[in-house]
Amino acid sequence: MKIGIIGSGDVGKTLAIAFSNHKQEIMLSSRSPEKLSSFINENKNILIGNPFETASFGEVVINATPGLKSLDALLPLKHALYDKILIDLSNPLEFPDIKLSVVNTDSLGEQIQRLLPETKVIKTLNTVNSKIMVDPSLLGTLDHVMFISGNDFIAKQIVTDILKDLFKWKHVIDLGDITAARSQEMLLPLWLKLCEKMGSGAFNFNIVKKNRANNEVSSIWKPHYFIPYFE
Amino acid sequence: MKIGIIGSGDVGKTLAIAFSNHKQEIMLSSRSPEKLSSFINENKNILIGNPFETASFGEVVINATPGLKSLDALLPLKHALYDKILIDLSNPLEFPDIKLSVVNTDSLGEQIQRLLPETKVIKTLNTVNSKIMVDPSLLGTLDHVMFISGNDFIAKQIVTDILKDLFKWKHVIDLGDITAARSQEMLLPLWLKLCEKMGSGAFNFNIVKKNRANNEVSSIWKPHYFIPYFE
Repeated sequence: MKIGIIGSGDVGKTLAIAFSNHKQEIMLSSRSPEKLSSFINENKNILIGNPFETASFGEVVINATPGLKSLDALLPLKHALYDKILIDLSNPLEFPDIKLSVVNTDSLGEQIQRLLPETKVIKTLNTVNSKIMVDPSLLGTLDHVMFISGNDFIAKQIVTDILKDLFKWKHVIDLGDITAARSQEMLLPLWLKLCEKMGSGAFNFNIVKKNRANNEVSSIWKPHYFIPYFE
Repeated sequence: MKIGIIGSGDVGKTLAIAFSNHKQEIMLSSRSPEKLSSFINENKNILIGNPFETASFGEVVINATPGLKSLDALLPLKHALYDKILIDLSNPLEFPDIKLSVVNTDSLGEQIQRLLPETKVIKTLNTVNSKIMVDPSLLGTLDHVMFISGNDFIAKQIVTDILKDLFKWKHVIDLGDITAARSQEMLLPLWLKLCEKMGSGAFNFNIVKKNRANNEVSSIWKPHYFIPYFE
């Protein structure tokens, strides 16, 4: 599968290496490829392109740009992203005072969906650090959760299968349409407090519920008809 | 211990019964005691008072009023609450569109603390339903978390011990001063989405972290020097 990753910070690079290790074809975007020379030397299977080339390359594209810059970064890619799945894992965080630049009655996920109405925007992965995004087993158990939202049901199913089949996420919870991105992004202040408290981002949330054995939260996407993409 | 509970909705009544079952002296406030006649008949150990009597009665007072009405309900109690601990478990939720009336750069917990500067406001219990507040074992395990925040360290320790000793909460995580109430209240949109998704409020969040055995999140308040209150 061809995956284009917009944004070559730590998150973009971690995702690029992980997808590449799982035998996917990856292009990572950079406006300054000269800064990536050591990365390029160490990861010869990963293509480097400008943002437009990367968006055009991907069958699925990932927004790994900083949340406050995402709208500006994605607008020029509108035509390249036409009818594609865009996985949005960014957060609209303002530092140092730690607040969200959009919140409560709107979200960055929704802003991106409105900016790119012909693109299938799927919000997910924004609630863990990049190492856990691509390897949830790092926490010593797979019993913790990833949330997902988006307007296109099939696109959501495809992204869920990517998370489960490639990265072995066990519990992917569909929160509904893209307005649920509000609830995903509003988890960040708590995530940051816990990160500060524990001195580490190596954690995630799990949902503990009554009668779990009879009603697994992980049972949402049992049919894996999307397997061909990962063969 | 004398506990005053302001607000006699389902949450207030559930807390009153639970504290009473744990041999604490309880007064529940109501502006219309005649509506509580069956509750009063079934719970003869629970005193009923008006809000001022209830706030005066309690060594610890609990705000169980609806979030949007909390400031109006608490302002007249300012002198009765002087130097006392006020446990705030309310959420500033606006329905039906589900948004927070205060968010991101402020919170209801902070608003109450500013309204009552001589009261020790402790935010906790706002992220679970009332049945789980008073009996976390209902979920079949105690490995799920309660958050707590507030400016007064000793008051936070006292409330933590109440949660652990009376209701058997195992993991109570101190998020810091009362500004952390933002992160606790901003969890509500996700809580509501999950409640809708699962058709039940009988769930809670747990924190899964690396090397948990070496670094338990529950180990924050090991010394239980506050035991006399519960004898």
